[in-house]
Amino acid sequence: MPPRPTLLAQSLPASVPFVGPETQERARGRAFVARLGANESVFGPSPDAIAAMAAAASEVWMYGDPEVHDLRAALARHHDVAPENIVVGEGIDGLLGYLVRLMIAPGDNVVTSDGAYPTFNFHVTGYGGHLHKAPYHDDHEDPDALLKLARNTRAKLIYLANPDNPMGTWHTAARLEAMVTDLPPDCLLILDEAYIDLAPPGTAPAIPADQPQAIRLRTFSKGYGMAGLRVGYGIAAPEWVSAFNKVRNHFGVGRIAQAGALAALADQPYLTAVAVRVAQARDSIAAIGRANGLIPLPSATNFVALDCGADGMFAARVLTKLVDQGIFIRKPFVSPQDRCIRISAGTPADLAALAKALPLALRKAHAE
Amino acid sequence: MPPRPTLLAQSLPASVPFVGPETQERARGRAFVARLGANESVFGPSPDAIAAMAAAASEVWMYGDPEVHDLRAALARHHDVAPENIVVGEGIDGLLGYLVRLMIAPGDNVVTSDGAYPTFNFHVTGYGGHLHKAPYHDDHEDPDALLKLARNTRAKLIYLANPDNPMGTWHTAARLEAMVTDLPPDCLLILDEAYIDLAPPGTAPAIPADQPQAIRLRTFSKGYGMAGLRVGYGIAAPEWVSAFNKVRNHFGVGRIAQAGALAALADQPYLTAVAVRVAQARDSIAAIGRANGLIPLPSATNFVALDCGADGMFAARVLTKLVDQGIFIRKPFVSPQDRCIRISAGTPADLAALAKALPLALRKAHAE
Repeated sequence: MPPRPTLLAQSLPASVPFVGPETQERARGRAFVARLGANESVFGPSPDAIAAMAAAASEVWMYGDPEVHDLRAALARHHDVAPENIVVGEGIDGLLGYLVRLMIAPGDNVVTSDGAYPTFNFHVTGYGGHLHKAPYHDDHEDPDALLKLARNTRAKLIYLANPDNPMGTWHTAARLEAMVTDLPPDCLLILDEAYIDLAPPGTAPAIPADQPQAIRLRTFSKGYGMAGLRVGYGIAAPEWVSAFNKVRNHFGVGRIAQAGALAALADQPYLTAVAVRVAQARDSIAAIGRANGLIPLPSATNFVALDCGADGMFAARVLTKLVDQGIFIRKPFVSPQDRCIRISAGTPADLAALAKALPLALRKAHAE
Repeated sequence: MPPRPTLLAQSLPASVPFVGPETQERARGRAFVARLGANESVFGPSPDAIAAMAAAASEVWMYGDPEVHDLRAALARHHDVAPENIVVGEGIDGLLGYLVRLMIAPGDNVVTSDGAYPTFNFHVTGYGGHLHKAPYHDDHEDPDALLKLARNTRAKLIYLANPDNPMGTWHTAARLEAMVTDLPPDCLLILDEAYIDLAPPGTAPAIPADQPQAIRLRTFSKGYGMAGLRVGYGIAAPEWVSAFNKVRNHFGVGRIAQAGALAALADQPYLTAVAVRVAQARDSIAAIGRANGLIPLPSATNFVALDCGADGMFAARVLTKLVDQGIFIRKPFVSPQDRCIRISAGTPADLAALAKALPLALRKAHAE
């Protein structure tokens, strides 16, 4: 018998969380006109960060500091916590993988929302966990339903994104603070705050960094505009940071990544300016949607979900007809959220291309 | 009871595979004069790669292609295999983690050499595998002993680095080809070829890419000079590449990383020139060692192990006295290899600093 993976690995599906736009471009034989599907920041990173990354390219013969000392120290100052409360990893995706590995043995129960971030589900399945999914409520993730499901299944983990992806909706800080208080005593909340830099004041809950039942995940991919750099971080009790150190790829966050993130963090005025441009883009997407009879959902992120007013099949046709015209977008996977298409904040030129393509896409989607 | 990691995660030690030079510099309160401990390439990457990384910094708002299409295609051409034979990951360290995860359930047996790459051991322990270690033979990893131990323990994995780290020694292609033929039928060989770009012709075995019992791991960290970029790759049968896809961080190799690796791969004349400079540096290190009564081991890598002629305690004192003088080096962990210190190829200035520091280090080590 040839060498074989573990029974768990053999049982895993071949599906991947996301198909990249490059794969679609290769299939289409041409590039997209507007790249509005992956919630990337078309406004890019701070010029200071670009300069720091370019400078670090010459120094990339050296491994990055495996303790990520300088970036962790700067993040600690930024969040008014200790460096021992900060773990840096290869994007939130990488940190989610480590955290699921730390917490989930085969058969352990995990709670998330039905239609929430698929890469989290990918990791839970990958480590043999059992996923239990609470429905969205009124297009919001539902803290009460998540808590109830966690109690009923004796779940070890709850995943919640605030603001949410793919809907863009959010809860107030107070609601999340109450949720942390109500957690079952042996349950850990993973609070994915990938989009928090773009949310209104009062969205980020005040959770003490040493609170052992909540780990907050942040990223340089969204507001900071460096999705392709792969730097995320967690704010967590020191015992959790120590646990990450037992399993993480210690040299996984390289030299350019650390330099870019450090410079981006130092340029808070740029982040503020990006948030303004993102808000303008959200307004434009909403206006384009309304002008075409679609209903924009409120969003605290760098994207807007547009309710196409029918079922998931119809929204899928709208998406296809936009993609056919060179507009890369994505959409929610699960009913009833899947009646929407999801449009990332774009440049004025991107959104002009969207405005031009959407009427035809809708006409064709209606005609089929 | 507060939330707790899995029993396996709770059982893991807090130790990490390597302490970085930055940690030592922070403890010392000053920078090293020469950075010769991590087998980085002081000669740096190709200027084309530096330019490609700097250019990609402006595009880093986009995720990298999760299929790593262009780099895999280029690697496939370079190695005369199919793109389906190539998996790209976050350095060899990242790929080792994925591979151990795929293969090792708690209690499974794994074979390596006593004193070989500690990050592999970190992953095996991290997934609950049982490590069995064959001794080095005459400062070489010992294929026959590894095979015998694998048969006796019914091991699922054998790890072997050719050329070896930390000794720098190597086996011929023919020896490795024979080893693959002799593998137990259900055992997988991980052949770590991190240093192969710097080895003499005839070192890389001709293993068919579709051979399901061997996975070869390569990197852009050593010869290509981009340790801080985090790009490694595996050459493996397509079923193994598919297995990696079931667990890997699909966006883990970012945009700058892919651009830099692609440009570096395209500049083979630069790699050839680096290999010449590395060979010159090896000769210089050997000469410096001999001038001080130390015996240089033959090396097919970008470092040289210098036999200090006594036990591991003495060599550790020599290392400490070099570090005290600002020379960052490392040494083998395990007897009898630990009688050596390990010096990475440096610039002429680096090696002049070594030549200046070594006599005093030896005098002090003898005096204690």
